Amino acid sequence: MPLIECIPNISEGRRREIVARLATAISSAPGVRLLDYSSDPAHNRSVFTLVGDASGVETAVLALFETALASVDLRTHQGEHPRLGAVDVVPFVPIEGVTMADCVALARKVGATVAERFGVPIYLYEEASSNPARKNLEDIRRGEFEGLAAKMQSDGWKPDFGPSTPHPSAGASVIGARMALIAYNINLATDRIDVAKKIAAGIRHSSGGYRYVKAAGFKLDDRGIVQVSMNLTNYEKTPIFRVFETVKREAARYGVQVLESEIVGLIPSAALLSAAEFYLQIEGFHAEQVLENRVRKDEI
Amino acid sequence: MPLIECIPNISEGRRREIVARLATAISSAPGVRLLDYSSDPAHNRSVFTLVGDASGVETAVLALFETALASVDLRTHQGEHPRLGAVDVVPFVPIEGVTMADCVALARKVGATVAERFGVPIYLYEEASSNPARKNLEDIRRGEFEGLAAKMQSDGWKPDFGPSTPHPSAGASVIGARMALIAYNINLATDRIDVAKKIAAGIRHSSGGYRYVKAAGFKLDDRGIVQVSMNLTNYEKTPIFRVFETVKREAARYGVQVLESEIVGLIPSAALLSAAEFYLQIEGFHAEQVLENRVRKDEI
Repeated sequence: MPLIECIPNISEGRRREIVARLATAISSAPGVRLLDYSSDPAHNRSVFTLVGDASGVETAVLALFETALASVDLRTHQGEHPRLGAVDVVPFVPIEGVTMADCVALARKVGATVAERFGVPIYLYEEASSNPARKNLEDIRRGEFEGLAAKMQSDGWKPDFGPSTPHPSAGASVIGARMALIAYNINLATDRIDVAKKIAAGIRHSSGGYRYVKAAGFKLDDRGIVQVSMNLTNYEKTPIFRVFETVKREAARYGVQVLESEIVGLIPSAALLSAAEFYLQIEGFHAEQVLENRVRKDEI
Repeated sequence: MPLIECIPNISEGRRREIVARLATAISSAPGVRLLDYSSDPAHNRSVFTLVGDASGVETAVLALFETALASVDLRTHQGEHPRLGAVDVVPFVPIEGVTMADCVALARKVGATVAERFGVPIYLYEEASSNPARKNLEDIRRGEFEGLAAKMQSDGWKPDFGPSTPHPSAGASVIGARMALIAYNINLATDRIDVAKKIAAGIRHSSGGYRYVKAAGFKLDDRGIVQVSMNLTNYEKTPIFRVFETVKREAARYGVQVLESEIVGLIPSAALLSAAEFYLQIEGFHAEQVLENRVRKDEI
């Protein structure tokens, strides 16, 4: 079965009954599985993780918009996390048997439908954006809901779909397609925070490192060690094993060893299988040799 | 969905129409997928690979017995491969969401049913055997169909289920449970066959190596290199990364490098995920963090 992951972020993280209603809207869509959701009251925001095929995920997202628009009003919304709309961000992620192009097409289709059906202006982001200045979520969201009306009138900020003024209560939504994001930490057998910070600076894109790595160094005070904490934003182009080996090598330069690493949350199996392939030097390997992949491939 | 793999070996590899009928018998069982099958005319034998839950796999195996018994006669069967019966061997292999104990129970249940319904004597083997002298397939099959009647009368060879004389045309069947078998080769950047043979001897169980490794050294004449060719018979207890690292280390002792390795055929994802975990030093990892596992776990 082709598998798309979708991780909608909704600007409601305090009223439990509303969050439950949003979850029900998603899981009622045929062929869709709601894998996980969590709410942060300080952020006043909830994040849902669902998977399904294109048509199932589309149905779920449209139901989610309908429910969110009926119960979330940005004019009275307060929370620490920046937000532009009631349904703030909707990324589609290719997992299995679908391409990035499929997810881009889905983002455009869902964006157009939402704009038409609910009158919410839509900005496309990441791989779904055709405008380099509007690829990054942070750039699109700058100014937040409160600054949205003025921003939409300024040069270059006409939305991709829908009206050129914000939806009164729901603002605007950012919809797009991106690779699965892997939250990955490497713990070092030292309490020297300078080592973690130097390594993080060396591997992250912003300071000259790997293109699809975001990284920072932290102290884990309770354990007396330090951590290089990362987001890997494209595990195909910047694979996890290359990042791990680089961190290990750079740590050795300071006489420091890698204690362990950790995957936070979910990871697509392909990201780990490529590490096994690398270290075991496996040649000519195909994903269909993985027994479980074969089983799923044959499913209707 | 709980997933059991079953790899029945049938003593028919020449008559295409019979092989097709056997394949149809398997794939007609509800909830069962026939992943692969192949026939060897010289061996006069066909191997089928199917997966499903316990009840689906049971239905498929019983249908397979019915079809094979109607069309295969060991009294006129000739082929290079040793065989005891028309349905020669039926192993059940736990893949996902089932234990070895589940597969042992299934082997016993199917064995009892086959004996009762078709009058075929059944020997349980590997994990399903409670008799140490009757654990290995080779020991049970020694003497083959032609020597079966005499063997069944000798001490210690009363079958686990069914009559104490062979089925006239179908002999006896060996049914059991075992771990998934991984066919794994490591190619060395040398043409020195002595190096491959010494390493194979060092890692295989029979000469003092790892418990769940069978290995031999071969020359790959066309490429001018040598190969350590292996079967890993329990990838949980003798994991693939430990075998790879040992071969690499032993090769280095002769000044030889590992060129590459290869997985032949299918491999359960857990066998490769454990290698990723090892090399990336991932702590506290759970199979449910693999996105695809989560999706399948939630399936009914």
